Amino acid sequence: MTTDAGSHHASALDTPPTSAGAQLRARLLNALQTAVPGCQVLTGEENLAPYETDALPVYRQLPLMVALPDDESQVQGVLRECRRLGVPVVPRGGGTSLSGGATPMPNSLVLSLARLTRVLEVDPLARTATVQPGVRNIRISEVAAPYELYYAPDPSSQIACTIGGNVAENAGGLHCLKYGLTVHNILRVKAISMDGEVLEFGSLAPDAPGLDLLALLIGSEGMFAVVTEITVRLIPKPPVAKLVLASFDDVETAGDAVAAIIGEGIIPAGLEMMDKPAIAAVEAFVHAGYDQEAAALLLCEADGNREEVAEEVARICAVLQRHEVRDVQVSSNEAERLKWWSGRKNALPAAGRLAPDYFCMDGSIPRRAIGKLLKRIQGMEEVYGLQCLNVFHAGDGNLHPLILFDGNDADQLRRAEDFGADILERCVELGGTITGEHGVGIEKLNSMCVQFTPAERETFLAIKRAFDPAGLLNADKGIPTHARCAEYGHMHVSGGRLPFPDIERF
Amino acid sequence: MTTDAGSHHASALDTPPTSAGAQLRARLLNALQTAVPGCQVLTGEENLAPYETDALPVYRQLPLMVALPDDESQVQGVLRECRRLGVPVVPRGGGTSLSGGATPMPNSLVLSLARLTRVLEVDPLARTATVQPGVRNIRISEVAAPYELYYAPDPSSQIACTIGGNVAENAGGLHCLKYGLTVHNILRVKAISMDGEVLEFGSLAPDAPGLDLLALLIGSEGMFAVVTEITVRLIPKPPVAKLVLASFDDVETAGDAVAAIIGEGIIPAGLEMMDKPAIAAVEAFVHAGYDQEAAALLLCEADGNREEVAEEVARICAVLQRHEVRDVQVSSNEAERLKWWSGRKNALPAAGRLAPDYFCMDGSIPRRAIGKLLKRIQGMEEVYGLQCLNVFHAGDGNLHPLILFDGNDADQLRRAEDFGADILERCVELGGTITGEHGVGIEKLNSMCVQFTPAERETFLAIKRAFDPAGLLNADKGIPTHARCAEYGHMHVSGGRLPFPDIERF
Repeated sequence: MTTDAGSHHASALDTPPTSAGAQLRARLLNALQTAVPGCQVLTGEENLAPYETDALPVYRQLPLMVALPDDESQVQGVLRECRRLGVPVVPRGGGTSLSGGATPMPNSLVLSLARLTRVLEVDPLARTATVQPGVRNIRISEVAAPYELYYAPDPSSQIACTIGGNVAENAGGLHCLKYGLTVHNILRVKAISMDGEVLEFGSLAPDAPGLDLLALLIGSEGMFAVVTEITVRLIPKPPVAKLVLASFDDVETAGDAVAAIIGEGIIPAGLEMMDKPAIAAVEAFVHAGYDQEAAALLLCEADGNREEVAEEVARICAVLQRHEVRDVQVSSNEAERLKWWSGRKNALPAAGRLAPDYFCMDGSIPRRAIGKLLKRIQGMEEVYGLQCLNVFHAGDGNLHPLILFDGNDADQLRRAEDFGADILERCVELGGTITGEHGVGIEKLNSMCVQFTPAERETFLAIKRAFDPAGLLNADKGIPTHARCAEYGHMHVSGGRLPFPDIERF
Repeated sequence: MTTDAGSHHASALDTPPTSAGAQLRARLLNALQTAVPGCQVLTGEENLAPYETDALPVYRQLPLMVALPDDESQVQGVLRECRRLGVPVVPRGGGTSLSGGATPMPNSLVLSLARLTRVLEVDPLARTATVQPGVRNIRISEVAAPYELYYAPDPSSQIACTIGGNVAENAGGLHCLKYGLTVHNILRVKAISMDGEVLEFGSLAPDAPGLDLLALLIGSEGMFAVVTEITVRLIPKPPVAKLVLASFDDVETAGDAVAAIIGEGIIPAGLEMMDKPAIAAVEAFVHAGYDQEAAALLLCEADGNREEVAEEVARICAVLQRHEVRDVQVSSNEAERLKWWSGRKNALPAAGRLAPDYFCMDGSIPRRAIGKLLKRIQGMEEVYGLQCLNVFHAGDGNLHPLILFDGNDADQLRRAEDFGADILERCVELGGTITGEHGVGIEKLNSMCVQFTPAERETFLAIKRAFDPAGLLNADKGIPTHARCAEYGHMHVSGGRLPFPDIERF
């Protein structure tokens, strides 16, 4: 057991080190001795620092300690001891959450699943793989590749993010339009409740009996139970894929073309859109070969057998021609297809080159409203005095505005947050939602107040209590308290926004 | 208001008419005067009789009264008054439930959604339809037909069952292997809680923010809220469909062929199996042209464009040839395709001709276990002294054993129930589940004790309390109480089984 329970320097948002905190830490360290080997419990600021944030680094908080269990029974042991001592627990996968889902709470234990990395079974006949939560997303496709199978959901972070985190956030990706989100590709999950009970949801059968808690658990942001085993659906690799690259003189026309493609009954494997500032940022970074004069760009992929792909590409091109497309090209080989994709896939690092910080927002709108919203966002850039690049999972109506700012400038941070909240509220106004695939986490708690009625939020809170009556498991994420929403309604009028939720237990 | 609150004759399983019951009825009738027009409240045995059972007629119970609201605000009014007076409510769609989901509870109000039959919108561009819950399943495809779209899930009862009931039970159908269950084809649901609160779940965006209560609501058997508006996904009609009809000398070989087809990466539009007794029953009834010498029959459909269908049929036939198929035919025209399907679709009425009653069981198993389970069921026929026909959604591993018996013979009824429970427990043993698509209802409450651990069942009960703290909404369905499971464990040893649940509130 690491006995360095020493100095615990406060970071910007940390609670001050109190003797009560030190006492709690000592008691917890002692309690964990039987649950986890000593070297797998981290304390001390230098060890804890890598865990103080996730991929939304504007929120930082040192945890009380970090536990790195090796297996399910150690996870169970850690949860039982934390439950007994009333210590909040924050589960953590690859730490790639973009909404603060893995940001520690004050005086919490971070439960890292990083050591649960075993692939337990690949069954090519049933076309399933059973893995531990710490297995990286891309790894599943790697172990399935010898059977010409793969795992479909492909978040941009797929090299680093874990399947456990994907389950917690119901992660999406470039190909989710055709192949579904995480929730559509998971068959069964084993998880441990805050009380240390083993729960199993879903099954290898197509329909689970009783309540569909599998779908409820997927996307519950680690608030209900800690996942320890996951059975995913594998699908055959399509033999052929072709990418259509189209440019437009106007964002609204491009948005209409997206709605028309789907309206034709075509379900492309991917249907992505970028606006002019995003194209410029990406071209300067990866030289993908995009038309830099265009106001908007569409990437539309067809996959399947040769005949299917040829027919679908022809139909896509016909729709584009009817929508004043400026230029349209079809990938002639695999290298070209991958080069065109590389631009879209590198939009986030490209944005990172333009400013010290950016928010990657994540809202959804009906496809027909895409053009309208983009015009609104252009207006907001002036209001908030900040630049915004737009990349879209357009086929899903899922937008990712990238708001550029400097986090060291408190005023810029505030304006960036207000800009983001403003976009999400316009999404709700247009009949959409405040999150497409990144989850609510800390970032969008206030927007949940706008999205849902008090009765709906009370239902959410009641279900949270059903799983975790003591309110210890990632409890300040995902669902705002009624008090918070009342306060937000009040603050919102004056344009203010809480940078970090007050600790309000259920 | 119908003032006939008169004689309330007890049926076999009814509670005796008490003065307390009569008082409650009078008070409720009075309270409902402002909520629903009088002619839409039914009392008196002759009016209530059609509601005493659903399509599982072994369980019968007269309700206290039936309300037939016209719109959402009337539904809200009825629920509020029942909540205030503590009257249990049983929502009812088309009454085609096969697990007792719509069977009244003693002294309950049946809330029929039969008058909420409006199609609110068909949006061919977004490929959605928004309808009220009393709209029949087939009606949605009828109103979508002018746009060459349809609603995919097709339970055998699709002419009679309602979309509200489909949502409550997460209904499946012959084509769910490729096109998904109800849960995969619903985008948004509006519902009223037992407290009369309007709740809206899901959205037209691909991912809903916050908790995935849409999937939780779908299949919750009317225990959480009463659905008043549903937005379904519509899909384009495939231009071509061909049906492969294959016969086998052995059920295990047929089961292996099913697993091999799926293992090849083929996802047929339908993949159905029937055993010899089912073939005989069906042929005598509809003369579908099946091979009566065969031990098992497979129906395997390919749909899509012409090239896809030709390629898929060739691959299916190749797999069948490798699995000792006895005879294989491909439909040469639409009339032949529909004739072959008519046999499978009429399996239930065909069984109804052979005995006064039958249980249509509904379990799921991994596909590779199909042959093994069929052999076990053959053995059970002797143990219980009853005949069983087997029809399967084989591609899903979803079996529908039809156990024939005479419900007027108490011993036969008991043996049929034990036979059914035995099959379901073998399903669990083989890694499957106790329900594929018919729900738990009353019928499978005891089997839930076998399927789930006490911790899992406690989670279910806690979620039920989160939606309906007073335990009034279809409260004795779906989830067994701990007391019931304890008793079942005890009774089960001695082979007994409770024919109807004791009224145990949460």
